[in-house]
Amino acid sequence: MIDMLIKKIEELQNPTVVGLDPRLNLIPSHIKEEAYNLYGKTPRAAAKAFLQFNKGIIDGICDLIPAVKPQIAMYEQYGAEGIQAYIDTVEYAKGKGLIVIGDIKRSDIASTAEAYADGHIGRVKIEEESYVVYREDTITLNPYLGYDSIEPYLGHCKNYNKGLFILVKTSNPNSGEIQDLNIGGEKLYERVGKMVQQWGEAFIGARGYSSIGAVVGATHPQQAEKLRSIMTSTYFLVPGYGAQGATAEDLKGYFNKDGLGAIINSSRGIIAAYSKAPYKSLYKEEEFSLAARAAVLDMKEDLQKLF
Amino acid sequence: MIDMLIKKIEELQNPTVVGLDPRLNLIPSHIKEEAYNLYGKTPRAAAKAFLQFNKGIIDGICDLIPAVKPQIAMYEQYGAEGIQAYIDTVEYAKGKGLIVIGDIKRSDIASTAEAYADGHIGRVKIEEESYVVYREDTITLNPYLGYDSIEPYLGHCKNYNKGLFILVKTSNPNSGEIQDLNIGGEKLYERVGKMVQQWGEAFIGARGYSSIGAVVGATHPQQAEKLRSIMTSTYFLVPGYGAQGATAEDLKGYFNKDGLGAIINSSRGIIAAYSKAPYKSLYKEEEFSLAARAAVLDMKEDLQKLF
Repeated sequence: MIDMLIKKIEELQNPTVVGLDPRLNLIPSHIKEEAYNLYGKTPRAAAKAFLQFNKGIIDGICDLIPAVKPQIAMYEQYGAEGIQAYIDTVEYAKGKGLIVIGDIKRSDIASTAEAYADGHIGRVKIEEESYVVYREDTITLNPYLGYDSIEPYLGHCKNYNKGLFILVKTSNPNSGEIQDLNIGGEKLYERVGKMVQQWGEAFIGARGYSSIGAVVGATHPQQAEKLRSIMTSTYFLVPGYGAQGATAEDLKGYFNKDGLGAIINSSRGIIAAYSKAPYKSLYKEEEFSLAARAAVLDMKEDLQKLF
Repeated sequence: MIDMLIKKIEELQNPTVVGLDPRLNLIPSHIKEEAYNLYGKTPRAAAKAFLQFNKGIIDGICDLIPAVKPQIAMYEQYGAEGIQAYIDTVEYAKGKGLIVIGDIKRSDIASTAEAYADGHIGRVKIEEESYVVYREDTITLNPYLGYDSIEPYLGHCKNYNKGLFILVKTSNPNSGEIQDLNIGGEKLYERVGKMVQQWGEAFIGARGYSSIGAVVGATHPQQAEKLRSIMTSTYFLVPGYGAQGATAEDLKGYFNKDGLGAIINSSRGIIAAYSKAPYKSLYKEEEFSLAARAAVLDMKEDLQKLF
């Protein structure tokens, strides 16, 4: 999986992943109205509007970026219809050649973790039949339960050419409450980082990086530099650029000297660009797709400063 | 929420929660065959079979236990149809008077956590309309991201009379890998336990317990005794009895002197009782509901030894 991601990053000269985290107040009115007219003001309408919006965003940016990251919570809240919109979004993005990072942050063990693994990055078996359900290329996981909560996914990474990004140091203000606790001369997130590096060593591809990556928030540049030095073959998925306050300058330490090692996520900064300066005055609401494209190009230019 | 749970535990003299974690190889053939005849060997058939099976289990035991705990992974793996079976299971259980603990172990922050909170224990808003989607009474959460990943749920606990069970010390063999790390004279799980106790103090009900509970695995009786002493008003949800090897004797330290403070989960030991000794020789596969009832009564008798 990781070689596929690196190839696309290099081809496009762009280490950007766009977060598909729609919410109703970010969806242009014409899309919402169409859905409400068809389905009423219902969870079904919200789910249909999300899918329609995502298709527009994907169409606008799919030739510029290697990957998208749908956040399943936004869809799951609407029940079965929401989950279907998530699945349809994944399928649409893959049809457009994008790598899909499912931001699911699941944490469970044994047969429960196997069920998540089968559904999201493997195949579910119904007697002698088997089905691909969610179809993500890689998913995020939470490590608090230890290796038992990671191991059930590893076989699927091998067998189906998939990957993981495991939470190490998250971008939120209170991430330190648990992750920064001191354990024998190091921080908990450093220890977890070492575990992730070790778990990933059996999954290193042709370019020296592992398909088992880590989530390291853009809001912690110093900690990231430390992690970069101990997690040499681990790819970082970096949330927090843009809306959460991090800038390109903060991101230098997330990359290795080869210019690889990190993929930077922006969500609202791209998908809701049409509603924000400077794009708001340049694009109509109906042109949200073009505004997203412009925002991706600006982000690419911003990130180029790093190389 | 917690007062409602305690009232039911006392009325029924039974601190048992039954885990509704179906998997196809535990479902009686007649249910599977019916679903396959209607829908083929598809994820839809699996989801329909799960719901049918759960209804049988719930009918057999709903007058004996206070709560059930469906594990969402088992349903989520089958996509939208699976999620619908989960939602329908929650609704059916609530219709039979059971408290529902949604075992979702979500971990996310800010608007993402709000989306989970709205969907699972609140209401999702579509313009001026709002809907209840999943309808659980309480859900499990993973604390690795800190208070940011808990806080968005707390308002809903207050406004909708709901609860949480936050992972503190899990029952799996490798739970210690991260949870048992030493941080300044105590273990990480003890520190997390203190946080949960503190987060819960604003949610203490009439009986002195908080609606913000903790998950403490049955496989760690010594650690539980320590946690019991520092988490005096926190209710423990205790997985690991039965299939994972813990016995009633291991559970004494999970309870307070008032005989309250813990609810003990059994999943396969109850729902698949029909397939295991001693019930297998007493009940036909079609009588899985009666076998589950017998297993619940045996578990109740076993737990009575503690009081």
